Amino acid sequence: MAPTKTPDSSRRSDRSRRAIHDAALALVTEVGYQRTTIEGIAARAGVGKQTIYRWWPSKAAVLMDAFLDLAGRAAEEVGAGPGETAPGIPDTGDLAADLKLVLRATVDELNDPTLEAPTRALTAEGVVDAKLGAEFVHKLLDPQLALYVTRLRAAQEAGDVRADVDPRIALELLIGPLMHRWLLRTLPLTHAYADEIVDYAIGGLAPRT
Amino acid sequence: MAPTKTPDSSRRSDRSRRAIHDAALALVTEVGYQRTTIEGIAARAGVGKQTIYRWWPSKAAVLMDAFLDLAGRAAEEVGAGPGETAPGIPDTGDLAADLKLVLRATVDELNDPTLEAPTRALTAEGVVDAKLGAEFVHKLLDPQLALYVTRLRAAQEAGDVRADVDPRIALELLIGPLMHRWLLRTLPLTHAYADEIVDYAIGGLAPRT
Repeated sequence: MAPTKTPDSSRRSDRSRRAIHDAALALVTEVGYQRTTIEGIAARAGVGKQTIYRWWPSKAAVLMDAFLDLAGRAAEEVGAGPGETAPGIPDTGDLAADLKLVLRATVDELNDPTLEAPTRALTAEGVVDAKLGAEFVHKLLDPQLALYVTRLRAAQEAGDVRADVDPRIALELLIGPLMHRWLLRTLPLTHAYADEIVDYAIGGLAPRT
Repeated sequence: MAPTKTPDSSRRSDRSRRAIHDAALALVTEVGYQRTTIEGIAARAGVGKQTIYRWWPSKAAVLMDAFLDLAGRAAEEVGAGPGETAPGIPDTGDLAADLKLVLRATVDELNDPTLEAPTRALTAEGVVDAKLGAEFVHKLLDPQLALYVTRLRAAQEAGDVRADVDPRIALELLIGPLMHRWLLRTLPLTHAYADEIVDYAIGGLAPRT
């Protein structure tokens, strides 16, 4: 008999989903992505593995939803509307200060040891698996990038960014260097680095005469 | 009995190494990194697997040396000195043109379908494996980045880049966006994009008044 959909069963279902998300993130941190299995996630979350197979086609899909869930929770905490995965970038009228604020927050997220392993695992899977990579970009990355486009457009209207700049490309001068440093581990990812990237991108490398 | 080291045995050894490199690159392209094994590489290269175990501790190490070998061969073709893994960035006196030339070449390399799978595989392994990632940076990436530092320092002496810019950070505004787009597959990686990144980085996003 199919269970009647009641507020109670919906709450139980939400609780199970969150337990599964948390179990997936914890397991990837502890044993790595390759050794994380649906069975292991189910055991840790205290649900049957059929529950997971009913909702997700793969462990990558579980991990992706775990990050979406986290992003949604983080956004709610800072007052984003329901369904929004991120708050907007502030517009105080000082473009450099606003971008430094958000890039410093990104540095802190990337350096957060509790999420480092699953974030790296999911990103690395997307590097080799085109389909998963496209889903990662569509669901998790693009909504973040759209916030930069909005802020840079406002800066163009305010005269702080040249009118002939494409905001979708300009934002890559900001987040590209950060992600490059984090992904390839070339040098430490610090607030000072975030600040310098913002200053270099806005001011340019050439002398202003 | 240990074989006497003669010019002939040294040549045979070079041939075996190159066969092993090529076999590793081909196998990763065909079956993926996870399913590539030392046994499979040995069979394809026509050597015993003990030969591979004698020279390399892991398949990741084989793949890393395969890329070093490729980089060395490519550099020799364009006239770099022996042991150099890359030619320098040209200095025609036109910084933007020189950087566009080298970034367009990087775009072509990243889009080369014959090397895409092994390049992605090795990079993705470095994203999750800190030790391998550090080796990748030390052996393969840092020598490339040093060429940008040299060219940007020359540009500072020529007055084309501000004296207070750190070349080691400035180069990340150039290659960070390219690698970000390639690794995360956000949008197509084209020559036009390489050109725009160079123009934005040199000129900056803010109006020049």
